[in-house]
Amino acid sequence: MKLFKYRITKKTKGEDDLIDITSDVRCCVKESGAEDGFGVVFVVGSTASILTMEYESGLAKDVREFLGELIPKDRDYLHNATWDDDNGYSHLRATLLGQSFVFPIENNEPVLGRWQQIVLAEFDHRPRDRVVVVHIYKV
Amino acid sequence: MKLFKYRITKKTKGEDDLIDITSDVRCCVKESGAEDGFGVVFVVGSTASILTMEYESGLAKDVREFLGELIPKDRDYLHNATWDDDNGYSHLRATLLGQSFVFPIENNEPVLGRWQQIVLAEFDHRPRDRVVVVHIYKV
Amino acid sequence: MKLFKYRITKKTKGEDDLIDITSDVRCCVKESGAEDGFGVVFVVGSTASILTMEYESGLAKDVREFLGELIPKDRDYLHNATWDDDNGYSHLRATLLGQSFVFPIENNEPVLGRWQQIVLAEFDHRPRDRVVVVHIYKV
Repeated sequence: MKLFKYRITKKTKGEDDLIDITSDVRCCVKESGAEDGFGVVFVVGSTASILTMEYESGLAKDVREFLGELIPKDRDYLHNATWDDDNGYSHLRATLLGQSFVFPIENNEPVLGRWQQIVLAEFDHRPRDRVVVVHIYKV
Repeated sequence: MKLFKYRITKKTKGEDDLIDITSDVRCCVKESGAEDGFGVVFVVGSTASILTMEYESGLAKDVREFLGELIPKDRDYLHNATWDDDNGYSHLRATLLGQSFVFPIENNEPVLGRWQQIVLAEFDHRPRDRVVVVHIYKV
Repeated sequence: MKLFKYRITKKTKGEDDLIDITSDVRCCVKESGAEDGFGVVFVVGSTASILTMEYESGLAKDVREFLGELIPKDRDYLHNATWDDDNGYSHLRATLLGQSFVFPIENNEPVLGRWQQIVLAEFDHRPRDRVVVVHIYKV
């Protein structure tokens, strides 16, 4: 089994910016030449997530609204006091949705449904330079 | 390391149908002959999830009730307008719970607790033919 | 590819005990000698989770408060009737947050942000002896 290591870097806008990285991940798989195997997608940091969804603007707004109600931005999170910061909500959302995603590879393609995209979710309140680590394992 | 590829196909009933696929996954592990290694369980599509739970009818109802309150079926999700469809809630639930599950294998068995089952969750409003991709990696 | 198998065992206090296991996992990676590869962290049982967060006491309290509101301890979960037990809420929280975490390894280190820790979350109401399975795969 052989490992091919990649980095996807994205400038995010902060505030629940949802960025479709499926084509970036697909490029990694192509370049590795892996016919069969699996990929690990991992975002470094504790205020962003990797998630899957049908990437279309209506659903993206639904996701933002859902998270905005579930974990509101403007509560007095204790984390904010720790650092005199105001991104406690970002941390909670990132913990809920996770930073790691594993997908199978077959026929030199990620096995994904047509409406199933891999998305980098920025939960921090400010723009960030995000690093997404992609490991492609080729059988 | 060697890869064994499987497909589990299930006819679901829609509406939060929770299907225990632990024995199907265990069969894949057995058939692969993997003493040690790991498995990737992945459901194709953006309105279903792979989750783990103690599979018993009381808890299954608790899971359904929890999700029904957290992400109600009958809200005006913007996704519904995009496709003139009504499964926005299905997408949100699937994004929240994820489509991918990785487990360790030891002694030719998935390492699972006695009350820890692998479950295919159908969040779409209608019955679906679901394809679950199982990759078994044998050391 | 070579597999190194480890067990991390922890006595938890119950009641949303959050235990930072990053240094334990880092030790496994070191001992394996894996320069590149990946790790699987898996907690056995259906009332605990593996999650990632910035491990500091303020955020730990935020996580507990968030879960306490989202999935309150004192509701009449049907699971409680099944076993004449009272940990239905523990199961729901564990299903929501998951039992499995996969991370990339580079330079004989888990690839993690400075504020991104791997945490064992005990959701059961009573102290437990938890077993965390760690598989390190070395390329």
